[in-house]
Amino acid sequence: MVAGVIGAAGYAGAELVRLLAGHPRVRSLSLGSVSLEGGWIQNVYPNFLEKVSYPLEKPEEVVASSDVVFAALPHGVGEPYAKTCLEKGISFIDLSADFRFDADEETFKAWYGKGYAFAGLRKHSVYGLPELNRDRIKTLAAAGPVIIGNPGCYPTGASLGIFPALATGLAAAGTIIVNSASGVTGAGREPQKASHFSECSDSMSPYKVGAHRHCPEISRNIRNMAELFGREAPPLVFTPHLAPMNRGILSTIYIPLADEWQAARADSVSTPRPPSGEIEAKALEIREVYAAFYKDEPFARVLPQGVMASTGRLRQSNFCDISVNLDQGGSMLIVVTAIDNMMKGAAGQAIHNMNIIMGFDETDGIGAIPALF
Amino acid sequence: MVAGVIGAAGYAGAELVRLLAGHPRVRSLSLGSVSLEGGWIQNVYPNFLEKVSYPLEKPEEVVASSDVVFAALPHGVGEPYAKTCLEKGISFIDLSADFRFDADEETFKAWYGKGYAFAGLRKHSVYGLPELNRDRIKTLAAAGPVIIGNPGCYPTGASLGIFPALATGLAAAGTIIVNSASGVTGAGREPQKASHFSECSDSMSPYKVGAHRHCPEISRNIRNMAELFGREAPPLVFTPHLAPMNRGILSTIYIPLADEWQAARADSVSTPRPPSGEIEAKALEIREVYAAFYKDEPFARVLPQGVMASTGRLRQSNFCDISVNLDQGGSMLIVVTAIDNMMKGAAGQAIHNMNIIMGFDETDGIGAIPALF
Amino acid sequence: MVAGVIGAAGYAGAELVRLLAGHPRVRSLSLGSVSLEGGWIQNVYPNFLEKVSYPLEKPEEVVASSDVVFAALPHGVGEPYAKTCLEKGISFIDLSADFRFDADEETFKAWYGKGYAFAGLRKHSVYGLPELNRDRIKTLAAAGPVIIGNPGCYPTGASLGIFPALATGLAAAGTIIVNSASGVTGAGREPQKASHFSECSDSMSPYKVGAHRHCPEISRNIRNMAELFGREAPPLVFTPHLAPMNRGILSTIYIPLADEWQAARADSVSTPRPPSGEIEAKALEIREVYAAFYKDEPFARVLPQGVMASTGRLRQSNFCDISVNLDQGGSMLIVVTAIDNMMKGAAGQAIHNMNIIMGFDETDGIGAIPALF
Amino acid sequence: MVAGVIGAAGYAGAELVRLLAGHPRVRSLSLGSVSLEGGWIQNVYPNFLEKVSYPLEKPEEVVASSDVVFAALPHGVGEPYAKTCLEKGISFIDLSADFRFDADEETFKAWYGKGYAFAGLRKHSVYGLPELNRDRIKTLAAAGPVIIGNPGCYPTGASLGIFPALATGLAAAGTIIVNSASGVTGAGREPQKASHFSECSDSMSPYKVGAHRHCPEISRNIRNMAELFGREAPPLVFTPHLAPMNRGILSTIYIPLADEWQAARADSVSTPRPPSGEIEAKALEIREVYAAFYKDEPFARVLPQGVMASTGRLRQSNFCDISVNLDQGGSMLIVVTAIDNMMKGAAGQAIHNMNIIMGFDETDGIGAIPALF
Repeated sequence: MVAGVIGAAGYAGAELVRLLAGHPRVRSLSLGSVSLEGGWIQNVYPNFLEKVSYPLEKPEEVVASSDVVFAALPHGVGEPYAKTCLEKGISFIDLSADFRFDADEETFKAWYGKGYAFAGLRKHSVYGLPELNRDRIKTLAAAGPVIIGNPGCYPTGASLGIFPALATGLAAAGTIIVNSASGVTGAGREPQKASHFSECSDSMSPYKVGAHRHCPEISRNIRNMAELFGREAPPLVFTPHLAPMNRGILSTIYIPLADEWQAARADSVSTPRPPSGEIEAKALEIREVYAAFYKDEPFARVLPQGVMASTGRLRQSNFCDISVNLDQGGSMLIVVTAIDNMMKGAAGQAIHNMNIIMGFDETDGIGAIPALF
Repeated sequence: MVAGVIGAAGYAGAELVRLLAGHPRVRSLSLGSVSLEGGWIQNVYPNFLEKVSYPLEKPEEVVASSDVVFAALPHGVGEPYAKTCLEKGISFIDLSADFRFDADEETFKAWYGKGYAFAGLRKHSVYGLPELNRDRIKTLAAAGPVIIGNPGCYPTGASLGIFPALATGLAAAGTIIVNSASGVTGAGREPQKASHFSECSDSMSPYKVGAHRHCPEISRNIRNMAELFGREAPPLVFTPHLAPMNRGILSTIYIPLADEWQAARADSVSTPRPPSGEIEAKALEIREVYAAFYKDEPFARVLPQGVMASTGRLRQSNFCDISVNLDQGGSMLIVVTAIDNMMKGAAGQAIHNMNIIMGFDETDGIGAIPALF
Repeated sequence: MVAGVIGAAGYAGAELVRLLAGHPRVRSLSLGSVSLEGGWIQNVYPNFLEKVSYPLEKPEEVVASSDVVFAALPHGVGEPYAKTCLEKGISFIDLSADFRFDADEETFKAWYGKGYAFAGLRKHSVYGLPELNRDRIKTLAAAGPVIIGNPGCYPTGASLGIFPALATGLAAAGTIIVNSASGVTGAGREPQKASHFSECSDSMSPYKVGAHRHCPEISRNIRNMAELFGREAPPLVFTPHLAPMNRGILSTIYIPLADEWQAARADSVSTPRPPSGEIEAKALEIREVYAAFYKDEPFARVLPQGVMASTGRLRQSNFCDISVNLDQGGSMLIVVTAIDNMMKGAAGQAIHNMNIIMGFDETDGIGAIPALF
Repeated sequence: MVAGVIGAAGYAGAELVRLLAGHPRVRSLSLGSVSLEGGWIQNVYPNFLEKVSYPLEKPEEVVASSDVVFAALPHGVGEPYAKTCLEKGISFIDLSADFRFDADEETFKAWYGKGYAFAGLRKHSVYGLPELNRDRIKTLAAAGPVIIGNPGCYPTGASLGIFPALATGLAAAGTIIVNSASGVTGAGREPQKASHFSECSDSMSPYKVGAHRHCPEISRNIRNMAELFGREAPPLVFTPHLAPMNRGILSTIYIPLADEWQAARADSVSTPRPPSGEIEAKALEIREVYAAFYKDEPFARVLPQGVMASTGRLRQSNFCDISVNLDQGGSMLIVVTAIDNMMKGAAGQAIHNMNIIMGFDETDGIGAIPALF
């Protein structure tokens, strides 16, 4: 099989190249780049020297020569290629936001500033979060070529930390808060002030507080999962931060617990006390709920109690690590998830989607053992 | 004046030495260390060579030769020195937790595992957060020698972000969530797995979720400030994280807004929309409330709207930077504070307390312009 | 095949586990740890959870159940296991220094402080730098079980940068200087002051100047390669540094050029001038000499002219990247090599040795495409 | 006194602002920026908020309103301002390369690509390395306004490590090698690929090998110092590297020792041995030569034997730390110097020059105690 990558010269594109070049079911690649057309991928990324060697061609040529096409393009420019792929009869896996909102063009327009070029394509598209939509992806793929709206990085880690609480009724109706910290690769390959080493190293800060495009995506995922289980979707507050590291997103998620899941408070004192045995037992019980929810998922790893999710333990892995905790008062569930933003948060998940569409083993090409450093 | 430092060989102690050696009202230092007694501070910290040169003596000798004593000791061992200082008639500024809980020995015991050695000392002690207790510090100091319970690092940044909302009625009764990330100097000088470079660099993770000793301290500060203004204290959830940087604590604080302060939601759609002009106006209005609250404080810096608090902009400064934001729904106040954990979070604040006690200019010795990198 | 790892709980051991667990010719592992015996590897390194699960057993049990044994132990304690392996008829790949000096016990003793336990084992041992000793490794392995003295991390990167210059007569008789910077994983898993984040992050410094144990190892490699080609071995100066990064060693190597290889100086001016076209042409010519020397080596990657060796481009790869440069005067060859110290500098090279001994494809299990970040 | 800074919005300019705003002899500042004219310095660098507040004006206005002018401009554009300053009768301290090469326009042209605009200005200019040229600076300043060619960052650390060896005859005639690693602030404020966090963090690499503009500057310094003491100047090889840190340059300098200074080799073995007592004694002896050479210098700090120069120990200090070592063979002097590239390597040294010209105490405004982290 030939896998095509449009936008191969960006960070997500190059990560796709790395993974696809080692994928057991992919025979060769076809790479496209508008800005670097005419060059070679191994000259743009010398880490590929002597391992991966492909010219960077026009996107149209990539579509023509591929059996599946990945697009790692800016938002709002890839729809024509999606259309051509469908017409040619091959699937299109889009890492931009263009297909993440399905038919809800209004929300897309509100956050991304322009409408859909070919709105009708959404009849063939599905939001590619396997833990939410695996069945829809499979059903659609069984019927013909499909367009995947590959999820955003923050929404992936946030949603996986919230889903079990929604599905099982752990979550009360109160606002869910997602506090996330991302590594700098999330800012992409283009140098800019925010990702200039001297500005961001050895420092932490938030950005786009109350105004990040991934907020409506997480919110929509919450609503969809809640609907699946006949529950009401709680409101969401989301704050992204930039952390001085390369890969990884850590999301600390605060979910008010439904009354029946709260551990009894030590109400006689108003000042917090260290967690009681009862609280620890309740946390463990909730951890088991999470583990049961994800028991068949290859990439959602619910950690043993006491092991905290840590981005450094996941580099270059497609896992989403999940640790389940309670606050000392017993009424707030604190779920912490970690992903590699370039893997489960981008290229790895895109290949997961390809594996599902193509009927490959879901872990093909993305099953690497997480490295130590 | 001679300033004494017990525990001078630890990180907080050495930062005290650096600051006191440059303090315009301090003539000389007297340094103590139990573990390194007999050595010299400039051999332990070669950055001091040719600038600071003092022997490390027994704590008793430091008390005997000083006009004020700072203690940067482990929790639970400094009370005898505090007692001796009072008897000698000099003030004692304690960077441990021993005097942070005033007469509430039960809470101290619950979190630190042992009771007070000399409970009666609390008649002479005060929690040294100037923005909360300046008047009490001054009153007590006017009456004789005083013991300062210098605040913990997380509680300083968290409390300063919450106080104006409590004092002015911005905060509703709902749970306040403090999500903090600390640099690794907060872990102190003793090598350990969590602060081993290969384990913590290029990585983020939480620790002691729902179980950190600074939780009851923040909670008590909230209660005290609420009481001052006749309001009810909201519950608190606090989660600390370790970030791959040296200095700094960033605290992202979620405060549910009282109804009258909420910006109108765009209720017709359930999916979040980018912040409206009304929300931006409301955020600016709340920012002015914060700025007014701190207008006479030398170290609380409320940032202009749109400038985000960032730990990298505060290194070696005693400022607490505060940025004020609203979520896109208009009902949650998101305050972000940044401090240098070794300065406003430890040694700088301790010297601020000394300045207040001694009647010096409050910024003496701790007024450095924040460096760029 | 069962691969055994003694000392599996250290960093090099755990990296061996990660690689061997993904090795296509290894059926299962047997892991040993003295200090953590009774535990499980995935509890010591939670990155292994759901991917690798083995108990940590006594070293003797590992030897008993394995078909080949890797030892990642401190220097001077592994010889008895090597002896047992030979007696049992299986090969022993030692990552300590115990077998790096062959029969030269004097040098070993001078630098490591103790003599050999079983000196006679050196009849069956070989220094496992494939680019130097592949034939000897194969010959010895053909005759029976073999002991590999797996090279030190610095000596690997340094030697590969020097070999072609020695072999081809590029090097004059003058002193070769190796200036190396290592990531902190090289200091191992045990927390200590030098690898404490607050001490080493955002900072560079040298250590053991003129006194590092890898100096005699590099020097001996130089001598052996020079002898192979009937040349005199030049003297060596070696300085290691600690750099604030996790993986990687960058070695900048200064080799005085033999007269016939020098580019003509612009002798009319004593002040340096930018490199002339002639110097650039000569540098390219020498680059071709290097490329030819390594043309059949799977892990020595001579970079195109103008592409500089960079440790960040090699993370988790077994490549040694080599860039070839001339100083602006045309008389000094400046070779820069980069390796991942845990891969080509330790575990990767050990598995390369296993592949050679066992007759596997040399890249089996260690052929990963270098990641971008 | 009013101090003017042209190019105040760049990193070196902003560091000048930070230092001058705290300088005891400077009453106020006048700041200029071509690209950000009309803005305010505290909006460009929010770390200055509430501490430093100045508009960014046209360079001509800065010259008109100042008593001394610093220029932190790109190479080749500042000469007209220097000319105007001289005409106005005030001194001009230039942080670009324009005045570093004195009358040697040929060398400047060869490396910087253009000639001098007003060559005659060099009659009034002096290379501002106080440890080399203090007397000339003072003599020139006594006669009227002066132009300072403030040294490059690498040349400062490199030259200070070499000078004592040249002056005292320690150095033989052989090539001196300077291997330097710089923090990323050295690349300036403009985002670019080399300083993009994802490209340079957690990684080391060299750049401009054999082709860096600071090579002729170091070489000229060597020649000038050698001439002062009637010695021959040895050739130079210089290699810069980029290290993943903010501030700091570490230079490891290899100086072949004159025969009479060599410690006796252990000639009976060709393989290196750990340093003998004789070598350690000789290293200490040479350390005393260095200490004596710099005994009156306020910013050259020769470290005690066994303490290694480390950039992390010098952040925001104007010191140049120097450690003196011998290789294990006793014939190569290995001097390691560390500076803060923004201080002694740029803005700090510029202010040192101002202090000398103006007759202030040389440490005024730049005497901060080095911080711990």
